[in-house]
Amino acid sequence: MPTAAELIQGILTGDRSSLARAITMVESTNTKHLSISNEIIEACLPHSGKSIRLGITGVPGVGKSTFIEALGTRLTSLGKKVAVLAVDPSSTLSKGSILGDKTRMPELVKNNNAFIRPSPSSSSLGGVARKTRESIILCEAAGYDTILIETVGVGQSETAVHSMVDFFLLLKITGAGDELQGIKRGIVEMADAIVINKADGQNIKQVDLAKLVFTKALHLYPPKENNWVPPVLSCSSLTHQGIAEIWEMIQNYITSNQKSGYFYTHRKSQNKYWLLQTIEEHLQRQFYQNSNVKNTLDKMIQEVIDGKISPFSAAEKLIRLSKER
Amino acid sequence: MPTAAELIQGILTGDRSSLARAITMVESTNTKHLSISNEIIEACLPHSGKSIRLGITGVPGVGKSTFIEALGTRLTSLGKKVAVLAVDPSSTLSKGSILGDKTRMPELVKNNNAFIRPSPSSSSLGGVARKTRESIILCEAAGYDTILIETVGVGQSETAVHSMVDFFLLLKITGAGDELQGIKRGIVEMADAIVINKADGQNIKQVDLAKLVFTKALHLYPPKENNWVPPVLSCSSLTHQGIAEIWEMIQNYITSNQKSGYFYTHRKSQNKYWLLQTIEEHLQRQFYQNSNVKNTLDKMIQEVIDGKISPFSAAEKLIRLSKER
Repeated sequence: MPTAAELIQGILTGDRSSLARAITMVESTNTKHLSISNEIIEACLPHSGKSIRLGITGVPGVGKSTFIEALGTRLTSLGKKVAVLAVDPSSTLSKGSILGDKTRMPELVKNNNAFIRPSPSSSSLGGVARKTRESIILCEAAGYDTILIETVGVGQSETAVHSMVDFFLLLKITGAGDELQGIKRGIVEMADAIVINKADGQNIKQVDLAKLVFTKALHLYPPKENNWVPPVLSCSSLTHQGIAEIWEMIQNYITSNQKSGYFYTHRKSQNKYWLLQTIEEHLQRQFYQNSNVKNTLDKMIQEVIDGKISPFSAAEKLIRLSKER
Repeated sequence: MPTAAELIQGILTGDRSSLARAITMVESTNTKHLSISNEIIEACLPHSGKSIRLGITGVPGVGKSTFIEALGTRLTSLGKKVAVLAVDPSSTLSKGSILGDKTRMPELVKNNNAFIRPSPSSSSLGGVARKTRESIILCEAAGYDTILIETVGVGQSETAVHSMVDFFLLLKITGAGDELQGIKRGIVEMADAIVINKADGQNIKQVDLAKLVFTKALHLYPPKENNWVPPVLSCSSLTHQGIAEIWEMIQNYITSNQKSGYFYTHRKSQNKYWLLQTIEEHLQRQFYQNSNVKNTLDKMIQEVIDGKISPFSAAEKLIRLSKER
């Protein structure tokens, strides 16, 4: 096993296998690896933060992999170094991982300026999110200047990804008339842009229609904090039509937000968010793993549901129990 | 001071002054009153739950008081007993309480079948919400069969009110063209109906237009759990035009949801929500009031914001500190 110092040295010189091994360390649930991974992260922190972090979400079937392959290939052709990560808690429930199969990005996986990492497995979204967020730091320290983070638009993971990226992109395809059907509540609100994929062949007319519907829908939301009005674009990951324009739009967003300073205040508030979020998760885990609480919780919930005890009294009882030995 | 037994006896026989005094006890921050109020609530619980709980939200100026006055008067004319409560955390910051001034409901306040209670003052939304939720129990035990809970649609209080009512009504007025402007994110999604107030005089044409806009907007959201499609209605709290229809709509909702069983499962999940919510609030309060945490938190937040330490390491440090003496 390489030492922390060796891995740090490797990462900072852009060695891919050191990066991969360090991420494995970060993802490890083995407590022996915790102090090593903490040491690596703290050493990489001063070298991190210089990338553009881009979140990409969309329900299964929308073509996230081919889109990332197309965008990633475009980026490397512009001389960029691209890392692709994933937040996919569903993979732990063996519903199939979004990035588990690297062969879904056959071009990018062969590309020396691209680094693809499947979703870490963890029992909780909090765990997956933490590991992904620390992997971002390692990738940045290894010199990757564009980080693409993929997630599935069906659970709570979009909120987590939204809280770790500079730009959040919602990928869609045209459907059966009502284009807005099936979008999880809140996802449209989080999007900095909507991109309608598979704009090719017979589909183009429908795509233009969908663009209108989404543009209207986006106008129903209050303006964003930075006054950005999310645009609706389309592309074909097959013909690469529209991919260049999407990247140009994202770059314009980043540049103008860096000028206004929003880019930096946004990152700072994200850092603070993750601090408070981690504390909250820890407090909850500690409480619900307490053996007294474990033994009583179900009974208490049932009594509360049945109206036999008020939720507030039940909470007080459980909290008292959690403090007893 | 009356004993808990006296107050319980009074509440269960519908004595208004016992109810008022018991609510004062529930709202008290004096720890001496805690065991008495707990005793009262536990005694009232078996007699509670038989009312219809209706949440009413809307930004200041929308006419919530006159609407509640009109609806409440309609309800008492139908033989109902109406209690009006408020969740208004803003009042504690002396921004002015929504129900603080009872004279804003001159008719209802004289009505023997109506009970109006201003918003409790508390330093936190959690505190206000808890007190309101326990007051609902006392009002129900005192025989009130319709509970109206008012809140201001500008903060986090709508989520709290939404989690304690059977039906959530969003009150609006017509504005300057874009009717959806200024609605806080998420509130439209929570609404079981939108009612456009002040549909009188010169305003009627604009109201009809606004109804169209809102109906369209509501169709952009995914269907509700119980497949209810929130309707858009209008009324004049001045002429009482439309008030009867609004109540009829709410009654139809309640009846069909009671038939389907959704009414009851919804209440049960609300009870469970309040149990978990109370536990969460307690854990957070306990952590952030710890003196070690208090002394270090700001410094840690700054280091995290500045990227000097990762949010996860900072969280670990703070948690360790919270356990030291």
